[in-house]
Amino acid sequence: MSRALPRYQDIQEAAERLRGVVHRTPVLTSQTLNGRLDAEVFFKCENLQKVGAFKFRGAYNAIAKLSPEERAAGVVTFSSGNHGQAIARAAQALGVTATIVMPLDAPKAKRNAAASYGARIIPYDRQTEDREQVARQLIEQEGLTLIPPFDHADVIAGQGTAVMELLEEVGGLDALFVPLGGGGLLAGSLLAAHAVAPECLVYGVEPSAGNDGQQSFNKGEVVRIPPPRSIADGALTQALGEITFPIIKRYAHDILTVSDEKLIHAMQFFAERMKLVVEPTGCLGAAAVLNETVPVRGMRIGVILSGGNVDLASYAACLSHGQQ
Amino acid sequence: MSRALPRYQDIQEAAERLRGVVHRTPVLTSQTLNGRLDAEVFFKCENLQKVGAFKFRGAYNAIAKLSPEERAAGVVTFSSGNHGQAIARAAQALGVTATIVMPLDAPKAKRNAAASYGARIIPYDRQTEDREQVARQLIEQEGLTLIPPFDHADVIAGQGTAVMELLEEVGGLDALFVPLGGGGLLAGSLLAAHAVAPECLVYGVEPSAGNDGQQSFNKGEVVRIPPPRSIADGALTQALGEITFPIIKRYAHDILTVSDEKLIHAMQFFAERMKLVVEPTGCLGAAAVLNETVPVRGMRIGVILSGGNVDLASYAACLSHGQQ
Repeated sequence: MSRALPRYQDIQEAAERLRGVVHRTPVLTSQTLNGRLDAEVFFKCENLQKVGAFKFRGAYNAIAKLSPEERAAGVVTFSSGNHGQAIARAAQALGVTATIVMPLDAPKAKRNAAASYGARIIPYDRQTEDREQVARQLIEQEGLTLIPPFDHADVIAGQGTAVMELLEEVGGLDALFVPLGGGGLLAGSLLAAHAVAPECLVYGVEPSAGNDGQQSFNKGEVVRIPPPRSIADGALTQALGEITFPIIKRYAHDILTVSDEKLIHAMQFFAERMKLVVEPTGCLGAAAVLNETVPVRGMRIGVILSGGNVDLASYAACLSHGQQ
Repeated sequence: MSRALPRYQDIQEAAERLRGVVHRTPVLTSQTLNGRLDAEVFFKCENLQKVGAFKFRGAYNAIAKLSPEERAAGVVTFSSGNHGQAIARAAQALGVTATIVMPLDAPKAKRNAAASYGARIIPYDRQTEDREQVARQLIEQEGLTLIPPFDHADVIAGQGTAVMELLEEVGGLDALFVPLGGGGLLAGSLLAAHAVAPECLVYGVEPSAGNDGQQSFNKGEVVRIPPPRSIADGALTQALGEITFPIIKRYAHDILTVSDEKLIHAMQFFAERMKLVVEPTGCLGAAAVLNETVPVRGMRIGVILSGGNVDLASYAACLSHGQQ
């Protein structure tokens, strides 16, 4: 796994690699919201990306950069979430075999989705086995290449293309709000914004219950927290990465947090006013803006809606929450 | 009210009038769906249009074409649904006073939405008053101009711009599926498709329970039905219009119907796979395609998702329907 910090040039090269492969997702606005906030807010809809999340960008970029030998041996990851689906689909598109290490009790929908992209599923027992060790064994035995979900230069460079597209489309921004889990999307966004719109204040936003990023940013070193509980299931990481943290520390303006309650309100706002399904994690940046966690009046604001993958029953429960 | 049939040139002129005013809504695709149907399906997302429906196009075009005297006197309509909201917002954008005749028991959300666009709300009692008579009185007393929801050349021309945009963006299509209520959207779509892609088969799709359009098309004359019951609340018209019917009769390939159950499945498909909130009426065209009501294999297919305005509680109930 490469530990070199990615640069803006890597994002530009990733954008070339991803041209015609990823969706250039739409940027949507709400006149009602702009009126209420007295601001101009541009939502970059990565929930409308392939596999329903920005993750496809980084996964494709990382696999596309492998050598012919590495491609022939195949890739492995141990995420059953959006990154796992993204690896499965990107690998399929590139004719590479993907192996996803998934807990035995993972939702059937996730297993089926990965399998439908032709991935090999290796189940493990959460109680008795360690997923990283399962993956490591496969790497040693079969020569697979691990594509981790965020702490990887090529993954980060791929994720940065979303903000690159946003800035190309809408021009300069005063502030940008980005969901923060392990920091792959935020790090890529920071590199892109710093190069193209250096005056833009970039905020990472994470769930209040899992504020390891905020603690780390304030302390100046990576802080590890116990497994957090939040509906933002894509941002339950316990610590930022060795590559993502230095980038965040250097370029982020601040790290903000929002409660699950505010994420639910944001999901309702997107369904009711913008006709978009956004998953809880995907609402992190938006919830900070909707609640004016920091001042936004008079500003041009970018927000990444990072994903839209929901279980219909839980999503319906969120939409009904607090309704008559 | 003009009874002249609109022509394609009217749609071209409407498109000029609407440039920079309406959203050029995105056209989205699903690789999974395309694989399943062995077809290429392009969804024109009018649920992402201003006021959440294509209705804004026709409303704005009709009001923009009024004389200075008519504009000064103001406009009136008696729809509390998407057309009413569209009239309120289009009138506000053009500095014209809008009056919406609405039942006393209309949902508060709809009253508030229209009022938030500066419209004057005139309530009437559904049991004792006739909304058309209430409107007629206002027209006589105050010189207001009635903008009806579908049977009006300028409204139809405005609605036709959605398909014009779709064909500009994706090129020729083998078939096009359009929700059918009173026929404003379908008539406009037919005129646009006939001019730009004359070989494209255009289908209108209405709820099974309210198949007046299908009966009329098959009989060759307007058939009026009793008030139908369907979750497609934007397609509960009892009869096609004097302007819309001749256009539909002449250019439509066929009129199809879908059940409420299939509309619910389509809503679930859009939420789960495409991350879009589509209202039941907005799913009519899509439900016919998803269920292969007519053969679509090997074809390039256009589908209009006509709107996304839902009450969150009812929408959540639809999403949970049949889930664990």
